[in-house]
Amino acid sequence: MNVMITGGAGFLGQRLARRLLELGYLTDSNGSKRAIDRILLVDVVPAHDFGDPRVVTVAGDIADAALLHDVIDTQTTSIFHLAAVVSGQAEADFELGMRINLDASRQLLDRCRRLGHRPKIVFTSSVAVYGGQLPAIVQDSTALNPQSSYGMQKAIGELLLNDYSRKGFVDGRVLRLPTICVRPGKPNKAASSFVSGLIREPLNGKEAVCPVAPDTRLWLLSPRSAIECLIAGHELAAASLGSNRIVNLPGISVKVEDMLAALARVAGPELIKRIRWERDPMVERIVGGWPGAWNVAAAHALGLLGDTDFDSIVRAYIEDDLEPNTVS
Amino acid sequence: MNVMITGGAGFLGQRLARRLLELGYLTDSNGSKRAIDRILLVDVVPAHDFGDPRVVTVAGDIADAALLHDVIDTQTTSIFHLAAVVSGQAEADFELGMRINLDASRQLLDRCRRLGHRPKIVFTSSVAVYGGQLPAIVQDSTALNPQSSYGMQKAIGELLLNDYSRKGFVDGRVLRLPTICVRPGKPNKAASSFVSGLIREPLNGKEAVCPVAPDTRLWLLSPRSAIECLIAGHELAAASLGSNRIVNLPGISVKVEDMLAALARVAGPELIKRIRWERDPMVERIVGGWPGAWNVAAAHALGLLGDTDFDSIVRAYIEDDLEPNTVS
Repeated sequence: MNVMITGGAGFLGQRLARRLLELGYLTDSNGSKRAIDRILLVDVVPAHDFGDPRVVTVAGDIADAALLHDVIDTQTTSIFHLAAVVSGQAEADFELGMRINLDASRQLLDRCRRLGHRPKIVFTSSVAVYGGQLPAIVQDSTALNPQSSYGMQKAIGELLLNDYSRKGFVDGRVLRLPTICVRPGKPNKAASSFVSGLIREPLNGKEAVCPVAPDTRLWLLSPRSAIECLIAGHELAAASLGSNRIVNLPGISVKVEDMLAALARVAGPELIKRIRWERDPMVERIVGGWPGAWNVAAAHALGLLGDTDFDSIVRAYIEDDLEPNTVS
Repeated sequence: MNVMITGGAGFLGQRLARRLLELGYLTDSNGSKRAIDRILLVDVVPAHDFGDPRVVTVAGDIADAALLHDVIDTQTTSIFHLAAVVSGQAEADFELGMRINLDASRQLLDRCRRLGHRPKIVFTSSVAVYGGQLPAIVQDSTALNPQSSYGMQKAIGELLLNDYSRKGFVDGRVLRLPTICVRPGKPNKAASSFVSGLIREPLNGKEAVCPVAPDTRLWLLSPRSAIECLIAGHELAAASLGSNRIVNLPGISVKVEDMLAALARVAGPELIKRIRWERDPMVERIVGGWPGAWNVAAAHALGLLGDTDFDSIVRAYIEDDLEPNTVS
């Protein structure tokens, strides 16, 4: 298998690559398990190659058709298309969001269409495709109504992937991700960046700002489970998806105040003092408009599993990402 | 008011222009009724100008950014964006459909965004945005799942128009049209072209081919009502639409066999002999996947009204479009 990961220098791209290197195998479009010969990590900055001879890194602009022409050929069996401009940035810089989140996705699909070899494509979508008046639990049959440019761009990517798959140009599958928490590293320009910060910053001895009300309900998936779902989503047979290639990945529905209670239980109540409450109307509007939960039956039936509880998510972050002796 | 109609040489574009010339007035974004000074008809072929000094016609490619630059300026107060490659053609020629149904729409919106004057835009969408497993009556909250490239392209146009409106780049409204019946003239490459043909051809002494089963349920709107809805949709205040600029226009739900019964009642039972039954799997798949009905409550609440019964639609065609003494 010849795998390409866009956004390959990013947090999810790097974890996915590491996990794929460990696994060593993926299932092709014919249902055959085959060794991974190559993982191509494409990103705007050079990706870490893990010192593994199977890894090739390419730094470049994913919206550049010439780059896509160079990195995708008939040997490319699988593409994890993770590259995106995050929600807050896509809202602030409309043209950048359109170029990366829409144009690049379409050019990637068109490159595959012209090659005609029908690679598997895993495209990550988002809670942000939903908005407006929503039921307490969003169903697979609930209409999309994005209230951010990021959500609009992801919803268009979904439509493209579905139609390019229906036409037989690619073998696509869209995985709608809950908000990923706890992301390691630094805050980014996602409107939901604070969600991981609420857990990560106090555990690293830093202050975190919470821009939303304590009873704001979030729909969360841990990095560990997200990576397992991306791979399991790749492995699915196309026939199991029917006339719609979109799967709402399982999340857990947690209020901000419940997240902080879990942090206190796992790492001590004094950490909560590192939260500063400061409402941000832009973040409240975007994140508050996302679903607090959606129906996970279809994902479970396909064997795509999420987390069991938020305490485990906090513990997983401490095990996987926290530097030793940081908790203070 | 300075009105542009794309697809202005087409059947709906021409009727809309004629009706606007009769009315003489439209409501601007501030809610003021203002005289129509100009109607610009843009199409790939020259449009009829009705001999009216207010009408200007431009022949050109709507997907050409230079043309859009020339025809849209800060004086453009209203755009009825009707130009499209029809469903059957967009399915057969994927690149053409993408260029006209998606790229042209986006370029049109981007021209307005750059000008910054926020014109009213009426964008016509279609039953084809729905597909897959549908409830007997589609609701406003039902998820889109287009099963044709035309439907995908229209769904993307909707998402763009909603987001460009939310961002304040344009004052858009999306009107989802039922299948228009009875269209005058010749058959076209729409998968639904036969629907009008079932009534039109027998009334003109010709044979019509029915490619679907007699109990296929269709969701129909007459040309008269469609034009009234397009204008009423333009006149709506943006505030009345809320966080979603999409309105499902009212249709009537009729089986093919009911249409033919109406034709027999209005124009005589012998006309039914001019129907030849010949199933076409491509047409059955596309048209059979469209909704047979959707909820019209939102449209009615906004004052957008459809037809009362199919017999009246047949009579309206005879009054509006049939050459005298053709019924035989």
